[in-house]
Amino acid sequence: MLVNNQEYRTVWMEENKVLMIDQNLLPFQFRIITSRNHRETCEAIKNMSIRGAGAIGAAAGYAMAQAFLEKKSRDPNYLQTARKRIESTRPTARNLFYATEKVFTAASISKNPGLRAKEIAQQLADEDASSSRMIGKLGSKLIKKSMRILTHCNAGWLAFVDYGTALSPIYFAHSQAKNPFVYVDATGPRRQGARLTAWELNQAGIKHLIIPDNAGAFLMADNKIDLIITGADRIAANGDTANKIGTLEKAITAQYYGIPFYIAAPCSTIDSNCPTGEDIKIEFRSPDEELYRDGQTSEGSIARILVSSPGSKAVNPAFDVTPSNLITGIITEKGIIKACSEEITRILV
Amino acid sequence: MLVNNQEYRTVWMEENKVLMIDQNLLPFQFRIITSRNHRETCEAIKNMSIRGAGAIGAAAGYAMAQAFLEKKSRDPNYLQTARKRIESTRPTARNLFYATEKVFTAASISKNPGLRAKEIAQQLADEDASSSRMIGKLGSKLIKKSMRILTHCNAGWLAFVDYGTALSPIYFAHSQAKNPFVYVDATGPRRQGARLTAWELNQAGIKHLIIPDNAGAFLMADNKIDLIITGADRIAANGDTANKIGTLEKAITAQYYGIPFYIAAPCSTIDSNCPTGEDIKIEFRSPDEELYRDGQTSEGSIARILVSSPGSKAVNPAFDVTPSNLITGIITEKGIIKACSEEITRILV
Repeated sequence: MLVNNQEYRTVWMEENKVLMIDQNLLPFQFRIITSRNHRETCEAIKNMSIRGAGAIGAAAGYAMAQAFLEKKSRDPNYLQTARKRIESTRPTARNLFYATEKVFTAASISKNPGLRAKEIAQQLADEDASSSRMIGKLGSKLIKKSMRILTHCNAGWLAFVDYGTALSPIYFAHSQAKNPFVYVDATGPRRQGARLTAWELNQAGIKHLIIPDNAGAFLMADNKIDLIITGADRIAANGDTANKIGTLEKAITAQYYGIPFYIAAPCSTIDSNCPTGEDIKIEFRSPDEELYRDGQTSEGSIARILVSSPGSKAVNPAFDVTPSNLITGIITEKGIIKACSEEITRILV
Repeated sequence: MLVNNQEYRTVWMEENKVLMIDQNLLPFQFRIITSRNHRETCEAIKNMSIRGAGAIGAAAGYAMAQAFLEKKSRDPNYLQTARKRIESTRPTARNLFYATEKVFTAASISKNPGLRAKEIAQQLADEDASSSRMIGKLGSKLIKKSMRILTHCNAGWLAFVDYGTALSPIYFAHSQAKNPFVYVDATGPRRQGARLTAWELNQAGIKHLIIPDNAGAFLMADNKIDLIITGADRIAANGDTANKIGTLEKAITAQYYGIPFYIAAPCSTIDSNCPTGEDIKIEFRSPDEELYRDGQTSEGSIARILVSSPGSKAVNPAFDVTPSNLITGIITEKGIIKACSEEITRILV
């Protein structure tokens, strides 16, 4: 996608290095960071310089490739340890495990493991971009003229390699002159909606308003929301979907008001080894994410301030699981399906 | 209630001055501000140095009394203008109108309007404190040993003159050694939960955790919440209740999971001239409240930082309306009632 009229992907590889847009600095600073080895890439995933289902997957694939390109890679233990290190960065993200598995398996049986690993990682990133593009094309059919769409967190191109999932149909609808309007859940504690989704929509010139996380039901009750689309971090075989904390509450509220609630995700987010949402491991992150806020001072520097009562603690689950019966449909690159085992099985064939 | 072992009310009057705990500085600084005339008190209500249903009511009563004590008060236009000024500070708060009405009416027919106005304002503040106390006593019966209670925003003693409403039953349960545990919704954009409720619970030594506004459904799905109690800013004659933005979403989610959802409020919050929730005027506040955050820097000073994408706008409704059918009951000083016209009419007699 375009940033200041230049084409960018969220993450890419040059020689043995992984380059990424630093999402912790956005929307205040646009900076590319370089990771020289798989450990540095793991660190970038963990501290969320790179985040979002597909982008984590692509970065994990590249990190796995980096490990195969590193000097010690002749030692199988080194590669196993590297894989575990990558997989332990963000336990809920399905695409991460999908990528390490694909790269590891293909490279392990290759005569030139480093080259092969890099090829596969690149292929996964390209697939992510093309799936996202197709999700946009198919999903845009759900968007009628001047529809008002609510989205949660950031499942735009920053969360993937390009295009994104939840935002991709909106980008297509915009290019089709359907004039979509987006309500952006701020999405605390990390505010990926207010920071990243709003930034993306600004860049694309799409009309939007940031809303407090508490205002969703108010707008739905007031007939201000026609459609909800969010991304997914992991979809169980029965359609239960883990996504950013707060998604579940929006889905319950949407059902209460009869508003269509869609998940947009590539098939790589579906975990057929995971029978239901109860089997999805939920990541808990540092309470400091809720107790403090990061932002820009009036002088333009980045600062962290305490926004809670000193001495109080917080609990900070990063995801919740929306049961399949609350999901109107899943927009995948292979079509829009119902969130049920039958359709999921069919689409994975 | 006790602050550093000294007894305080949220707002009180000394001679012609109104004194208040500055809630914009809490939880980082504990400071008393003095307002010398009704205009300054209006300003304090507007900028939320004083906030919360009952505290606004008491401050409005005192402000009305200040107007009657001011030099120009012999001019009836002056008093009418003052009353309108007070009533325009926070349009959703029922107790504000209740207080200005009571003080204005009683003082207008008195031979010594200034003295009478001050007496009535004092009486209203005392009534607020005693109602809150009674709400605590009655509401504590709902709290079983070791219950885990979710609350939204701040309806503790800071939101009233003393004790509070939603927190008052918890204070009583704590004093009855029932060992309550409180999940505190951070309550963005202004974070009255993370800042004020957490501070109150800290002062009282009650166990609690701050949670992101997005985490309510996660905890309810995980069987971590036994009971929800929130305050109210205005209750319509049919039981529909306006309260801090986000309350509606918690009520819908609570119904989905079968968790009891109570409103705690004195009868003065009931507006019998307001037939249903649709007739309640909702205050929209500055988008900056959502786009920025106020807090404490690591050096201990108070700062405001931008926490959203520059150039994006926000919408910031301060309240939403929970329909009566989502409310398990209303805890008033006259008993716990169902949220319906019949019981509300009965209790107001």
